[in-house]
Parts: sequence; C-alpha cells; structure tokens
Amino acid sequence: MRALLLGRFQPFHCGHLKVVKEIAEEAEYLVIAIGSAQYSHSLENPFTVGERYTMISRTLKAEGIENCHLVTVEDIHRYAVWVSHVTSHAPKFDVVYAHNPLSLRLFRESRYKVVELKLHEPKKYSGTEIRRRMMAGEEWRNLVPKAVADMIDEINGVERLRDLV
Amino acid sequence: MRALLLGRFQPFHCGHLKVVKEIAEEAEYLVIAIGSAQYSHSLENPFTVGERYTMISRTLKAEGIENCHLVTVEDIHRYAVWVSHVTSHAPKFDVVYAHNPLSLRLFRESRYKVVELKLHEPKKYSGTEIRRRMMAGEEWRNLVPKAVADMIDEINGVERLRDLV
Amino acid sequence: MRALLLGRFQPFHCGHLKVVKEIAEEAEYLVIAIGSAQYSHSLENPFTVGERYTMISRTLKAEGIENCHLVTVEDIHRYAVWVSHVTSHAPKFDVVYAHNPLSLRLFRESRYKVVELKLHEPKKYSGTEIRRRMMAGEEWRNLVPKAVADMIDEINGVERLRDLV
Amino acid sequence: MRALLLGRFQPFHCGHLKVVKEIAEEAEYLVIAIGSAQYSHSLENPFTVGERYTMISRTLKAEGIENCHLVTVEDIHRYAVWVSHVTSHAPKFDVVYAHNPLSLRLFRESRYKVVELKLHEPKKYSGTEIRRRMMAGEEWRNLVPKAVADMIDEINGVERLRDLV
Amino acid sequence: MRALLLGRFQPFHCGHLKVVKEIAEEAEYLVIAIGSAQYSHSLENPFTVGERYTMISRTLKAEGIENCHLVTVEDIHRYAVWVSHVTSHAPKFDVVYAHNPLSLRLFRESRYKVVELKLHEPKKYSGTEIRRRMMAGEEWRNLVPKAVADMIDEINGVERLRDLV
Amino acid sequence: MRALLLGRFQPFHCGHLKVVKEIAEEAEYLVIAIGSAQYSHSLENPFTVGERYTMISRTLKAEGIENCHLVTVEDIHRYAVWVSHVTSHAPKFDVVYAHNPLSLRLFRESRYKVVELKLHEPKKYSGTEIRRRMMAGEEWRNLVPKAVADMIDEINGVERLRDLV
Repeated sequence: MRALLLGRFQPFHCGHLKVVKEIAEEAEYLVIAIGSAQYSHSLENPFTVGERYTMISRTLKAEGIENCHLVTVEDIHRYAVWVSHVTSHAPKFDVVYAHNPLSLRLFRESRYKVVELKLHEPKKYSGTEIRRRMMAGEEWRNLVPKAVADMIDEINGVERLRDLV
Repeated sequence: MRALLLGRFQPFHCGHLKVVKEIAEEAEYLVIAIGSAQYSHSLENPFTVGERYTMISRTLKAEGIENCHLVTVEDIHRYAVWVSHVTSHAPKFDVVYAHNPLSLRLFRESRYKVVELKLHEPKKYSGTEIRRRMMAGEEWRNLVPKAVADMIDEINGVERLRDLV
Repeated sequence: MRALLLGRFQPFHCGHLKVVKEIAEEAEYLVIAIGSAQYSHSLENPFTVGERYTMISRTLKAEGIENCHLVTVEDIHRYAVWVSHVTSHAPKFDVVYAHNPLSLRLFRESRYKVVELKLHEPKKYSGTEIRRRMMAGEEWRNLVPKAVADMIDEINGVERLRDLV
Repeated sequence: MRALLLGRFQPFHCGHLKVVKEIAEEAEYLVIAIGSAQYSHSLENPFTVGERYTMISRTLKAEGIENCHLVTVEDIHRYAVWVSHVTSHAPKFDVVYAHNPLSLRLFRESRYKVVELKLHEPKKYSGTEIRRRMMAGEEWRNLVPKAVADMIDEINGVERLRDLV
Repeated sequence: MRALLLGRFQPFHCGHLKVVKEIAEEAEYLVIAIGSAQYSHSLENPFTVGERYTMISRTLKAEGIENCHLVTVEDIHRYAVWVSHVTSHAPKFDVVYAHNPLSLRLFRESRYKVVELKLHEPKKYSGTEIRRRMMAGEEWRNLVPKAVADMIDEINGVERLRDLV
Repeated sequence: MRALLLGRFQPFHCGHLKVVKEIAEEAEYLVIAIGSAQYSHSLENPFTVGERYTMISRTLKAEGIENCHLVTVEDIHRYAVWVSHVTSHAPKFDVVYAHNPLSLRLFRESRYKVVELKLHEPKKYSGTEIRRRMMAGEEWRNLVPKAVADMIDEINGVERLRDLV
C-alpha cells in the first residue's frame, strides 16, 4: 500500500503523529500532503508551508520514521480538478487518508480508496484547539511533538498568532 | 550551511546528481526546490512535479543521500515577490545554488549568498539535450541516474514527449 | 428583444423554468448564463457547471423550448469588469434578468436595461431550500423539473451533498 | 456515442463544419467545446468566445443540426488538471475529437477514447490561413459558412484583426 | 523619513485626513497605498480603486498637501509575499503606518519600523460606520472631507451601496 | 479634456516626457497609467512598477508639471475586460493616448476617443533601444530625463539588466 495523508497541519500535533506512525508502519510509503500551501499569517493558517514542512520533517527524524514523502499542495478552489491537482503534485498513491469531508468525497468520486481519519481525542488533539490555547496563553506544548514546540518557539509562533487577533 | 538548490529538473540528470552530492556533503542539509511545479505535458516541461519529485527521491535513496529536503514551488510570474515565495515554501536556508540568471539576481538583491551552478559537461548533461535525444530516438539513459530512467520508462515518458511534438 | 438570464442554478428548479418560459416566449432568444462556473462540490454550489448545463438543456428539450443559448461564466471576483466579462462570453443581448442585487447594479451602471426577477413562491422554489431539503432527507423532487430530478439521481447528487456536510 | 470536439474556432470554418456534420450524424450528441475562452483581440485569437459561440450556433441552426451542445472552456495552463477541467464544464462524453497533440495526449492518459481530427484540405481550411487572408486583404469568405462570414462583417472582424497588426 | 500609509479607504474620511496631515508634515514624503485595489461594488468595498484614488487626490489638492504619492495595491491573498508585493508597487519607504494587525505583523517580520495607527474617535471616523450610515439614510457627509462627499454624490455612491443590500 | 496615457515605461524616456508635456499643457489633467505592473526583472520589463512610478514622479517634479495622476495597472490577459479594468483603476478620462495597437483598438471598440502616439525619433527614444544600449554598455543617459538616469543608477539598474542576460 502507498498511502496519502491530507491535512493543513496548523500545527502538526500528537494526533497527527499517532496516525502517521500507524499508517507508515503498514504502508510501503506514506505521502504527507500539506494543503493550503499558499496561506499563512492568519488565525486559521498561522504557519507558512515551509514552517509546517520543517515541523513535520524534524518530527519524523526524531521519531526515526523514514518512509514518508512530504509534499505541499496549494488550494486552487476548483474542486472538480482537486484530485488531479493533488495527484500531479505527489508520488503515486492508492489509499487516501483524510479528515475533511470534501477531500474524502472528491477522492471517492475519482474511485480512490479513502479512509476517514479518526483522530485520537479530537477535542484535545486538534489544530483549532491548539491555536485557541496559544492565543489564550494556555498550555499547548504537551499537545504537539517536541520538535514542533521547539520550532514554534524558534519562529515566535505564539507571538505571531496573538499579533493577528 | 543550509543550502537551497533551484531547478526544474526536466528530468533530473547526472549533472544534477553530481552537484547534489557535492553540496549535500558540505551542508547541514540541502533543500532541493523543484520549480515550475504547475507545469507538465509540454516540450519544455514534460513531467509533472510529482513525477520529478519521485525521480529525485528514488535517486537520493539509491545513493544513500539522507540530508536533503524536497520541496515544490509553483511559478507565480511576479518576480518581485519570487524570493519571498520560495522562502515561504522551504525550510530555512542561507546559500542559494542556481543556474538561472534570474533566480541568482533575485536572491542576490535580497542579500542571500548565491552560487552560480557550474554544471559538469553542460552540453551533454542538460535537460534540453536529454529531451532532444528522447524525441529524436537517440540514447539518453546514460545521462540520467538509473532510478530516473526506470521512472521515465514506468510512465512512458518518451512516448509522452513524442506525442506532444 | 434578446434577453440574458443570470443565475447559479444550484439546481435549476421549477421557479427558474417558469421564468425561462415567460422570457423565451417574448424574446428573439434567451441566453441562460450559468454563473460561478468553476465551483462545485460545496454546500452552496454542489453541482459542476457541466452538470447544471445538462440539467437545463435536458429540461429545455423536454419542454420544447428552442430559442435558448446556454453559456457558462466563471466568477472573477473583480466586479468592475464583471459586465465586460459576461458580455464577452455570451451572444449579444439587450435586457438582463437577474435576482442578485450585485448583477442588477453592475449591468445598470453599464446602461443595460435590467429586470429584477420576481420568482414565483420564492421560499419554496429556491436553490437554498431545495439543497436544505436534500440534506434533511425531505421531499425535493416536486420542486424541480423531472429531467433535473433524474439527472441528480444519475449522479448521486443527494449523496454528494450529504457527504459534504 | 457521446462525442466531444475540442477547438479554438478562430474562426469556425468549413473544415470544422464538415467534421461536425460527420460526428453529429453518428453520435447521440456532440459537445463542441470552444477553448481558450478568455482570450480575444489578438492575432491568434481575434474573436471573443461569445462571438465564436454565436458563429457556431447560427451555423448549426442554418444547417439544421440539432444534437450539439456548445460549451466554452477557459485555458488554465495546468495541463495535469486539463481533463478534469474540461470534463466538469461539459455534458458527459465518451469519445474525444481533437487536432491539438496536447489535448489528444492528455485525454489518452485519462483513458478516454480519442480520435485525431483529419481536417479536409488543412492548408486551406485552417484558422491560421483564414486570419492571414483577412490581414492580407485576400478572399476568405469562401472558407467559412455564410453565417460566420455575416457575423464577422457585423462585428467588423477584419478591421479588428488589421488594427491589431 | 519616508512613510507608507496602508488602508482600503472605503471611503477616505476625516480620520484618515487627520493622520495624513500629521505624517506628511513630518515626512520627506508619504506614500498612500490604497489596498484591495481589485475590489468594488460590495458592502465592504463599494468604491473602485480609481474612485478612491480620485477622492484622496482631490482632498490632498484642496488641503494643499503636496508631498504624497498615491499608489494602488491589489490583494494577492498570499501573506508570505505581501511585503514584497507592496514594496514593489511603491516608491521607497522606511516607516509603515497601518491599522490592520496583519499588515503590522507582516512588515514587522520583515524588519520594517511599523506604527500602529491610532485613529481619532474610531467609532465615528470609520469606514464601516460611514457605510452603515449611508445605507441607513443617516448623516455621513460631516465625517468625510468635502471633496469626498462631492465625489460620492457625483457617482451616486449612496445609491450604489443601497442597491447592493 | 481629461487624458489617459498608457505605457510600460521601461524606462520612462525623453520621448515620453515630450508627449507628457504636450498633453498636460492642453488637458485639465493627464492620467499616466503604468501598465504591466506586476512584471519586473526581465529583459522586457526590468524595473518594478514602484521604480517606474518613482522615475516618473521625480521627472514631473523636476519639470514642474503638476496636473498628472500616476496609476499602476496590472496586465490581466483577458483583453475583453481590459478597458473596464483600466477604467476602474484610474480617475475619469475621456481621451486615450497610446502606442500599442491593441490598447488603441480596445478603447476604440468601447467608444473612447483614442489618439495614436507619434513618438519623436522613435528609433532612438524607445525603451527597447535604451535597454539594448544598457546591455551593450553604450551611452543611454542622454535618452532619458536626468531624474530617471539618477534613479537607475541608484538601484544599479544597468547591472540588473546585464545579470538577466
């Protein structure tokens, strides 16, 4: 099996990591596609795609996971061509893991095998919750891998998010 | 040193590989940025960015090169924002290797250290020459790494190029 | 009179058909412009423009209406050029029928004769209401022409809409 | 068989008409897709897509051809998504007729049945030749259907082309 | 000091004018950058950028302010390149005045000196409030410079806004 | 008369200045529209629109010409909407001066009064010739206003152009 995992990873958190480990173990390789690649510096998408790429690749290295490919995919807002767009930006894959109903639907219409991601403790391990905690000054570091927390500190990510409010 | 190598890699050839090996040896890591990411199926840009990504990542694996990051960058045709665009799509870097005069100029204006790539035997190891040979039915496999030749065969790349003439 | 009717037709319903019949009867011809052409697979715009085109052309055929031209128009989100954009995508017209206040305003500023569409029973015969019923599992087939209901069944349109929620 | 015919139709000429008649006779219906829809007022693409739509629909009416659907398709310059883009803008089809090698290749890669158009007397019945004659002040009216010649006169098409030189 | 003032100016009001006077007095010159340049005819952005340019240039003339440069900047919705985009569209500047937290953050990340605009009586002198009054039929002329009120009357701006509701 | 002058001004030269003086003398005001605003750093378009804006505004100041408005206009490559696009980016105008046949044609089709620019000694006073001289190391300073020559030196414009070859 060659798997694709779709997400925005704003930021990459422990829920994502758990899923990545599980899929990577079974798969020949896992393509991690970082979506909304052109967006950053907003409350929904605070981190650039380069920052998100770095968070993930450092985590994979720290965890010793070696069979992943990281790709970045810009939104093009023409959903009828979304599957072709993703496909042309990634190494070949045959199973799609995603959380977003739209992505699941689009790949299903194109006859891909799709698996709806069931995130572990989704109220806690969620980008929205983590960004909320950052803005509120609450504890968030325990929800993300150490490499991600370090990276966010390095780029003053929490300050960026608060400045945007 | 954290290096960036910019190119279109249509296809990735032995000249590129030689350069990658040399930079990767010296650098903490090397970001390989595959440009013109949205283009494919033309005489200048026959391969999709996903195909080019696969060519390069298979070659790096075969060669045992482990400190590279592969990123893909779409052309946006607004050169005044090109440097910011690349920067936001990649892990941090401080030296830029490129062949294209425009890229060199733009990064130099933004005060990056730039190095003009001197490709080995540029008349032979060149994307243009390799695509010409493919179209003419001449020998090209000896100019690219084995993983690249295999990949091009897998996707019937030569047939694609000839169909486009 | 050569008329233009602007809409998104998500989906084309009996209210639209009534209006089309009335205009087509009086006009030399009626251009039906299907807007937001690039959008699909969302709660607001579930159907592709090709699907909407098919719904309408099958209905016109079933009804024996022959003096209509179907055109598709992508949103370009620069309203100051909207009138030129529509004009260049359609056969010539001199009266504009629309429901959307923005379209009415823009064509009026360009000195076109505009007519605000008064839809029959607008709470019932409305795209929003029909999509709501589809999602809620309520009866919707009686609000659209038979050719439209058949088409939506053919493409599993209701399932698509529910998958997107 | 449901057929798609792809072209730019700058302008629609007798060679196109001959092909349309042949396909329409055999097919359940023929979708005529007018490409490069956003372009006009250039030497290569003098006529707007609305003008080209009008030329074709008047000709079809004059010829009594009733099973054609006219659609317009904008270029998006991302060939990897081209097939999905066309597909989402048109009623369903299963055979593709085109002249352009790129379109043929792209639809073939997506497993469509494709037929390479063999135009009758291609040196004479060609958009390029007709535009050349218009600019040179030579006879061109005999190469296009009467409805097209009339339409071009109506919009002062020859004057437009000459102004652009 | 060469200053940049960023805003949408929908419309330019007395609060803006007060700030312009203060900055222009101190600065070698002030670049007034009119943002969201491609938008118009919406409740948030009723006026075209040409109309806003005219409002501001007439006001500057009436006030005898001579060291301002008016530039227009389209939104590009890729915030990581926003600073380069603005910079390439304007004469050189070294201090940025803005109200919008995003702009302030982006220029600060690029090591520009930024000053958060403190508008005088922000509940009254605000584009949102002025547009609300226009729609409600309340008094708004006393909140904008006379040249702006005249310009809005000239183009029937209030009628446009009400038509859009 | 309120005039519009369209050009790319790569760079603004003495031929342009002569024309500006003549039009500005007769006109209530002259809008100078700098086109191809998003392009820079190419052999055809070396200077950013901000740099071109600065060249022109410094020249106007040096020459004491006060009734000009400088606006910048991005190319949108949809010529059917070009007139609306320019119109929405500029103060009102009723006569258009341009050199480019396409612009003249488009404004004429929209019923504007157009005047074809007859540049003085067009082989010498031409952007193409000036850029050629810069690249060849020949004398070019005598073909542009002093403020322009100074500005180009300030930004190392000649070096930029040579780097791009």
